[in-house]
Amino acid sequence: MTTAARRAALVSALADRGLAGLVVTTLVNVRYLTGFTGSNGALLVPVAGDPVFLTDGRYRDQAAEELPDVQHVIGRDLIGGAAERMRSGDWALETHTLSVDAHDRLAGLVDGVGLVGGERVVELLREVKDEVEVDALRRACDISTTALVGLLEGPLVGRTERVVARDLENRMLDLGAEAIAFETILATGDHSAIPHHHPTDRVLAAGDLLKIDFGARVDGYHADCTRTVVLGRADDWQREVHAAVRESQAAGLELLRDGVDVSASDAAARGSLGASGWLDAFTTGLGHGVGLEIHEDPFIAASHAGKLSSRTVLTMEPGIYVPGRGGVRIEDTVLVTAGAPEVLTTMTKDLLEIG
Amino acid sequence: MTTAARRAALVSALADRGLAGLVVTTLVNVRYLTGFTGSNGALLVPVAGDPVFLTDGRYRDQAAEELPDVQHVIGRDLIGGAAERMRSGDWALETHTLSVDAHDRLAGLVDGVGLVGGERVVELLREVKDEVEVDALRRACDISTTALVGLLEGPLVGRTERVVARDLENRMLDLGAEAIAFETILATGDHSAIPHHHPTDRVLAAGDLLKIDFGARVDGYHADCTRTVVLGRADDWQREVHAAVRESQAAGLELLRDGVDVSASDAAARGSLGASGWLDAFTTGLGHGVGLEIHEDPFIAASHAGKLSSRTVLTMEPGIYVPGRGGVRIEDTVLVTAGAPEVLTTMTKDLLEIG
Repeated sequence: MTTAARRAALVSALADRGLAGLVVTTLVNVRYLTGFTGSNGALLVPVAGDPVFLTDGRYRDQAAEELPDVQHVIGRDLIGGAAERMRSGDWALETHTLSVDAHDRLAGLVDGVGLVGGERVVELLREVKDEVEVDALRRACDISTTALVGLLEGPLVGRTERVVARDLENRMLDLGAEAIAFETILATGDHSAIPHHHPTDRVLAAGDLLKIDFGARVDGYHADCTRTVVLGRADDWQREVHAAVRESQAAGLELLRDGVDVSASDAAARGSLGASGWLDAFTTGLGHGVGLEIHEDPFIAASHAGKLSSRTVLTMEPGIYVPGRGGVRIEDTVLVTAGAPEVLTTMTKDLLEIG
Repeated sequence: MTTAARRAALVSALADRGLAGLVVTTLVNVRYLTGFTGSNGALLVPVAGDPVFLTDGRYRDQAAEELPDVQHVIGRDLIGGAAERMRSGDWALETHTLSVDAHDRLAGLVDGVGLVGGERVVELLREVKDEVEVDALRRACDISTTALVGLLEGPLVGRTERVVARDLENRMLDLGAEAIAFETILATGDHSAIPHHHPTDRVLAAGDLLKIDFGARVDGYHADCTRTVVLGRADDWQREVHAAVRESQAAGLELLRDGVDVSASDAAARGSLGASGWLDAFTTGLGHGVGLEIHEDPFIAASHAGKLSSRTVLTMEPGIYVPGRGGVRIEDTVLVTAGAPEVLTTMTKDLLEIG
């Protein structure tokens, strides 16, 4: 789908609400709707008339190249530039990200124009990926798992968390990632009990758990994958915890499908952890949408209302974290379909014993 | 300076304004005031009483380790948790970053409490670095320039922009950077005319300009440095443009000093480019504060009111960009003093002819 088709879908959603247009100030939404990859820009999408893209002088040439089909306005004052072009009717603003100060300034500049909340209208569109997006996510996930498989060929024991994390990141870049999707979480021994651990100079040792949460970025799209392995032979406790997480993930994945409420998946994964007696050791969220952002709508939670749709891409990442002892997380990026979800991070979930 | 001392300085600034406290929701400000490095947290700083840190369950252990001296509240609803603890008086909010929706929700939860703009009070404190911060910036800058000096020993010609950028980034990580400060801008030939160019598969060729804008991150602090070199022998045009940028930078740096208005430096650097006839080819800002953020207050601009203070750290980065032909930028990270600023990115600014 082209960005023009995405803008058309947005205009349709705005027209349904009787709005005159949307002021898109969330940079990732600007990118989704235009392809612009710079760090400063806004987009005015009127229901009647052509969209207008606003950015500053640094991006004059880049905007001409990336947005050949959208009118540009170059200037320092994006809010002022937007206000000049809002002449009548009710305009929606991205009030979930727009700052209070920017809102107040805009409100002071427009006259005879109503300002209303945007209710995350672009984020809602972004929940269902088009083929261009699925393709980028597929490539990002392929690069990620290929890199991890290579890394696990070792050697690992005797190297530090930092060094091994860098090795993995370089493998992703060598395989064509434009960047890493986020700072790699690579945690060994009792560090694995810390859900979001920063790699340290601790040396990987035989007998330890090794938890790796990582991903590649391709064309702006993020992969997100976690595997936990054992260095050497797994002991009974490690096997038990790993099996409990794997069962929980399978239970949650089973219900990530078109037409099913997101909360059902949450209940199933938590129910599995409850049945195995480990629910208290699960302290994070179960998963989240992933795309142009590493964490985006929809978030998997008991409180999340709303049914999943085909071509939504999410993670499913239950874990068990026992402070001072260790932790296991298993996470995949998956594509929702009418049946079982398609796992994009295709790699074994058996408990690997490495080296 | 400890984070407790920073909080004390904040309390003093809030008391001067007659406020009951500040709700710190800007993550980098939370880090500055507490040392917390996670991705979700808020801090309540009352003028009377102890501060309260709010985060979610993922960060329970990390918060205990990073903030041993601050009370923690663990929960999903940071806004709700903050509102419960705001009982009377006027509280400032970080309205420059707080979203309209978060503001409205908070306003609906508090009763008998006034809510006012925070006027970037923490950002103002952050403009003047303490010794811990200057030390981290110094190390980040040292790593950056050491890495670039090593890279320029070559070979460079025949390798791609992407490969050479990765080489530089790996050198910084090898030298102890915790991460790169931002995605490296490495541009050769006419790509150097694009201020913020993403490295491509273009091969570096003899006779071309090579512009590299890069930096290391250490303890959360960012270095920012640009050098432009010639691959082989420089021609007259390249020499002329480089000399004009270097003169402009020297003119701007000269006025980055304690007690001088930021706009004076802007005028001097632009005046120099005007005198050499290149002002129209300068399309970006001249510089910015740098610290826990790669771009932070103060920004160097004609419109910026306010005098510089010792121990402010900024960049000075004039450039000349000629589309289709090439560009030159020279940028240093410098520490403001009572005299000439101390350049932290210590490396020659002569026009290097490489290989």
